Amino acid sequence: MPENPSKEYFVGVDLGGTKILAGVFDGKLELKGTTKLSTKADRGVDAVIERIARCVKEAVDECDLDLSQVRGIGVGAPGAVDTETGRVIFAPNLPGWKDVPLKKNLEKLLDAPVFLGNDCNVCTLGVFDQEYKAKPRDLIGIFIGTGIGGGLILNGDLYHGHNLTAGEIGHMVIEVNGPKCGCGNRGCFEALASRTAIFREIQAAVKDGQETLLTDMLGKDLSDMRSGDLRKAIRRGDKLATKVVEAAAEFAGIGVANLINVLNPEIVVVGGGVIEALADEMMPTLIKAAKEHVMPGTMTGIEIKASKLGDNAGITGAAVLARRATA
Amino acid sequence: MPENPSKEYFVGVDLGGTKILAGVFDGKLELKGTTKLSTKADRGVDAVIERIARCVKEAVDECDLDLSQVRGIGVGAPGAVDTETGRVIFAPNLPGWKDVPLKKNLEKLLDAPVFLGNDCNVCTLGVFDQEYKAKPRDLIGIFIGTGIGGGLILNGDLYHGHNLTAGEIGHMVIEVNGPKCGCGNRGCFEALASRTAIFREIQAAVKDGQETLLTDMLGKDLSDMRSGDLRKAIRRGDKLATKVVEAAAEFAGIGVANLINVLNPEIVVVGGGVIEALADEMMPTLIKAAKEHVMPGTMTGIEIKASKLGDNAGITGAAVLARRATA
Repeated sequence: MPENPSKEYFVGVDLGGTKILAGVFDGKLELKGTTKLSTKADRGVDAVIERIARCVKEAVDECDLDLSQVRGIGVGAPGAVDTETGRVIFAPNLPGWKDVPLKKNLEKLLDAPVFLGNDCNVCTLGVFDQEYKAKPRDLIGIFIGTGIGGGLILNGDLYHGHNLTAGEIGHMVIEVNGPKCGCGNRGCFEALASRTAIFREIQAAVKDGQETLLTDMLGKDLSDMRSGDLRKAIRRGDKLATKVVEAAAEFAGIGVANLINVLNPEIVVVGGGVIEALADEMMPTLIKAAKEHVMPGTMTGIEIKASKLGDNAGITGAAVLARRATA
Repeated sequence: MPENPSKEYFVGVDLGGTKILAGVFDGKLELKGTTKLSTKADRGVDAVIERIARCVKEAVDECDLDLSQVRGIGVGAPGAVDTETGRVIFAPNLPGWKDVPLKKNLEKLLDAPVFLGNDCNVCTLGVFDQEYKAKPRDLIGIFIGTGIGGGLILNGDLYHGHNLTAGEIGHMVIEVNGPKCGCGNRGCFEALASRTAIFREIQAAVKDGQETLLTDMLGKDLSDMRSGDLRKAIRRGDKLATKVVEAAAEFAGIGVANLINVLNPEIVVVGGGVIEALADEMMPTLIKAAKEHVMPGTMTGIEIKASKLGDNAGITGAAVLARRATA
């Protein structure tokens, strides 16, 4: 039994490089409401922590609740996280975030227990606990957005690894001399199948003189392109967008096959902004490529599915984290 | 306490496509003696099972012991294995081996409890338990021989996965359009860094007219080439052997980096016939390539080591399996 049954709500926070999303959940983890704030990462660590606190307070207020009714707050942060001490060890997309005691500082501002996790681990936990009711013994979450990250549920629990960085699947090399990745290497999964990779290929083709509806929609420099634009172009029969997204889906399938060969999980769930926008376009190719690239016999009964949580995977997982930690 | 303290010995069996190796170990897992028999896989399933039993009996007799003094027999088999029922589900290198009740049949012939595992899992267990005294929480074993296989120790225990095929690291794709692999795909780890891959590259180069001491040593067709010949050629300054082995070591390092990015284990141990023969030649390049291909920061404190168990990893791990199962 929880200490105080009136404290029956949880807040899940998805801290990203550009936005902070906070969601208020009841004790059954039904979403009551959300609030979004821009991160303003350039204002520095303390300013961002204050914005997280403000976002939580506003979300709670939006639901006509009070912080005193919140039993726990979970936060998914983009980087390496020490889940035990609640420190962000390093967050490449948040300038200045090195060894930041986020849990301690947020608890001061919010007067409620805070629990911290890596963003992709937290998303995976949300998918595992809420979308799959914690039933699979082993589940891999893959999130394809600007980059590619993942989380591993092994033997029914999040697996963190020696330096707490397990699940960095985006930097698995799958094409040794492939395109350059942000990490400095070549041919990483992320450099082949992320939104960044898709946009890079399309921009290069346009520069090369290839035609696409995307330039009609967005102008020659394609500066404001989003995953949804790709979907629209593909549905209108655009050949370039179709070809590039297809290629990314095939690479994604090979990445999934590698993970199935190594870990042989029961379920692989694919999510993130790219999949949210392009599930119908990408999943059939992704699944076909995965089946072609696993060891014969290893995939019996293994499912590859698109997540239905969409943009809420992060806040849902963060709320699960808080509920598990305060159970 | 074991039921009968006079039953203080264990037998570990390494069942391979070409040979069966059985080792007798005392209660502290010190190796007392070994016996080797050829597998004669073409004689069929029953004949091979009888040969395993004979190999065990001869090893026990060789040590002046009796089967009644054996508490348990462990067997590492090359393929997918159901560890609970003791059945070999499928073994690609043993013709006819499909759903074979190896445990049951061996127990009939040997009148002692038999425990079954996948060969690379068993080797990893041997390395973990005996070479590393079961101290690391997470350890990956990689075995480079004719093929490449692996085993995962996660949270202190062997991890099997949904279809019991976890650790099939040899078929992780690391060069999408790379050389053809035995599994039908291209650019698998095994097609780039195994003995088969090294020999293929050397034979192709010789056919192409490149010179190498290996043809002086072994004749133009290089038919009897072994990993040890490569070592001799490299130590005598052979440029082709050096270049090809170096390239394989670099691919092996990329494979290791992929596994560190995904699983972030405490220790990666590399073994198998190729490493046993060429550790000095390959490990520095392998470790350098791995460090260059992991996400920055993920490798702090993680060790990559060559196993010292050599050809005995299989029998040692099988004995560990038997000891753990009868403890």
